Amino acid sequence: MISEKMKKLAGNNSAIRAMFEEGNRLAALYGRENVYDFSLGNPNFPAPKEVNEAAIDILQNTDPVYLHGYMSNAGYPEARKAIADSLNRRFGTSFTEGNIIMTVGAAGSLNVALKTIINPGDEVIAIAPYFVEYGNYVANFDGVLKVVNANPEDFQIDPEAIAAAITDKTKAIIINSPNNPTGVIYSEESIMKLAAVLDAAQKKFGTDIYIISDEPYRELVYDDTPVPYVTKYYANSFVCYSWSKSLSLPGERIGYLVIPSEVSDFELTFTAASIANRVMGCVNAPSLFQLVAARCVDVPTDVSGYDANRRLLYDGLTKLGFDCVFPAGAFYLWMKTPGEEAEFVANAKKYNLLLVPGKSFACPGYVRIAYCVAKETIERALPAFAKLAAEYGLGK
Amino acid sequence: MISEKMKKLAGNNSAIRAMFEEGNRLAALYGRENVYDFSLGNPNFPAPKEVNEAAIDILQNTDPVYLHGYMSNAGYPEARKAIADSLNRRFGTSFTEGNIIMTVGAAGSLNVALKTIINPGDEVIAIAPYFVEYGNYVANFDGVLKVVNANPEDFQIDPEAIAAAITDKTKAIIINSPNNPTGVIYSEESIMKLAAVLDAAQKKFGTDIYIISDEPYRELVYDDTPVPYVTKYYANSFVCYSWSKSLSLPGERIGYLVIPSEVSDFELTFTAASIANRVMGCVNAPSLFQLVAARCVDVPTDVSGYDANRRLLYDGLTKLGFDCVFPAGAFYLWMKTPGEEAEFVANAKKYNLLLVPGKSFACPGYVRIAYCVAKETIERALPAFAKLAAEYGLGK
Repeated sequence: MISEKMKKLAGNNSAIRAMFEEGNRLAALYGRENVYDFSLGNPNFPAPKEVNEAAIDILQNTDPVYLHGYMSNAGYPEARKAIADSLNRRFGTSFTEGNIIMTVGAAGSLNVALKTIINPGDEVIAIAPYFVEYGNYVANFDGVLKVVNANPEDFQIDPEAIAAAITDKTKAIIINSPNNPTGVIYSEESIMKLAAVLDAAQKKFGTDIYIISDEPYRELVYDDTPVPYVTKYYANSFVCYSWSKSLSLPGERIGYLVIPSEVSDFELTFTAASIANRVMGCVNAPSLFQLVAARCVDVPTDVSGYDANRRLLYDGLTKLGFDCVFPAGAFYLWMKTPGEEAEFVANAKKYNLLLVPGKSFACPGYVRIAYCVAKETIERALPAFAKLAAEYGLGK
Repeated sequence: MISEKMKKLAGNNSAIRAMFEEGNRLAALYGRENVYDFSLGNPNFPAPKEVNEAAIDILQNTDPVYLHGYMSNAGYPEARKAIADSLNRRFGTSFTEGNIIMTVGAAGSLNVALKTIINPGDEVIAIAPYFVEYGNYVANFDGVLKVVNANPEDFQIDPEAIAAAITDKTKAIIINSPNNPTGVIYSEESIMKLAAVLDAAQKKFGTDIYIISDEPYRELVYDDTPVPYVTKYYANSFVCYSWSKSLSLPGERIGYLVIPSEVSDFELTFTAASIANRVMGCVNAPSLFQLVAARCVDVPTDVSGYDANRRLLYDGLTKLGFDCVFPAGAFYLWMKTPGEEAEFVANAKKYNLLLVPGKSFACPGYVRIAYCVAKETIERALPAFAKLAAEYGLGK
């Protein structure tokens, strides 16, 4: 007999994953090239060649007892130092290896951060639309997810809505910029207003309220849009990073958690987070890829392919009459559904178009279209979208 | 402000890790070669050459989008099939890839198993002496660890003691064979008696009671001692495996969970465990090392070095008058302390001998000596042990 928590989860399996399975089923029926699977954020571009070069070089030239062995639960000091130095160069921060914990991807990092601070019943705010797993992560520690809508005009943070949602039980707010699923990047103004709201609330309630900044898409930015580094605006910040998207390494589970020295009770917090990394079962981030990532810390993310996809898809869909948010980052297009959402998603599937419904992000009336696919998939999909548009009488 | 659970953990940091830091401090003072650090289970022998050969070959000859990409949360089907086939060849089982979930080491595997089944307040039995992290893993899910002593004569399972400890809240028993810290391998008789006790208890209480078999030391066996495969003796079994010790890969975090088809509600349980792997933050086991481990699934573990250490240490200490359990597996020697435990550990440290006190395994009056070290460390340490023995008037 499985646990009550898992019974609920197993019965209510992620819509995104279900879509992934559906894609495989349709591909078996119609051929992979005739199914337009925009459902999963699995990077279609290969890791830059520097990754495999670094991995092979490290495998060939490092003592295997060191390379594959245990290290401190926080990770190899030299890897953490390389990351701290790179962040300092890019963002003018002052981190050392003592501010960095290597983690099993951003999902590992978010869970370490939450395990470190959440007591049962503590409230964690998420801004809808949001990545559905946040609810599961918060539930791991018996926290309570409170959903606040983004500003419906531009999907930026709505500071008044957040201020209204904060109580004496609020322990954290998870933000995600560049955003999954909207592609929006939070402006400096948004971050400053959020920091002001939280500072005021900390004073009012005499509590610590943390920003947990989930940043797997930090390097996936178009048109040089700046992505403010939150620790510079707010002391009680955690930054959760992953190379899953920037280096196309989602399967390798490599990322890190930044705990700035300005956090309340810094030393205790850092120790607790290292222990959390251990006891939750990760123990440490995978050792080879800690060293690979550190070696590749300044390898630029080539966004040209995603950018071409972004323009092709946005222009194509807009021309067909669909109402889309022009993405500033990440690799998702957020589109209004012309009719009722579930019906629209089902109709899209008739044309072998696999889209994720907005309700999976707690924001019905939209779909997410992941354009981390081959350009040809978009080219071949646009005529299918055209038929879908015609069905809804768009573009007339 | 960190969480109450983590406050307790941070205040009460693992004695083993503390010893590891102490080893570094002493090494800085006296030179690494003059500190005899027997505290940590970090394999001193390098991974077999097949590991790096496989890693490099896979890196050079696999599509990086596939190699480093997302796969099903349970892992690559071909890796899971290779493992199932290997288990079937070796143990006469009938597993398929549908019985295997790739995990972030055995710690990940144990947490997946516990998350899958434990409701708050459920009881999990551990057999003392036991690996201290079991308590933390069970606490992750608000389970209650109940400690039952092993048979003090031979450190085999004591079936009557277990029968007496089972209640209607008992959900699982964690067993670990070859055992950390005693080096004991549970005999077929022990496993059969345990299965009979649990079968009877399941009938009596109308509940499911699982064996969770933690097997990172399965291949570290001396004198061809058989290690019974629990799924053949008891239906509600989970097997948690890791290549940390068998292939000297503890840093890479690669292991698996076996869920046999005979488990209650098998399909729901397997689905729940796959989701547990995802939501606890692992998402999936590291992708490259899934394929490396699958390629190396039949690479034999060379135990000759550990075996030589075992005999050298056991013979040396026994000759000095210490009372030790002769290890049948793993790489730990379990030794009675001639005087009060804490004092003995402190006295050992005077001679730069770092030993882990038995109370860290809920079994005072003993120390654990990890002999996964260079043979020279043992050779150089024996004169220090001789001084310690003399201090206690042994061997006279």
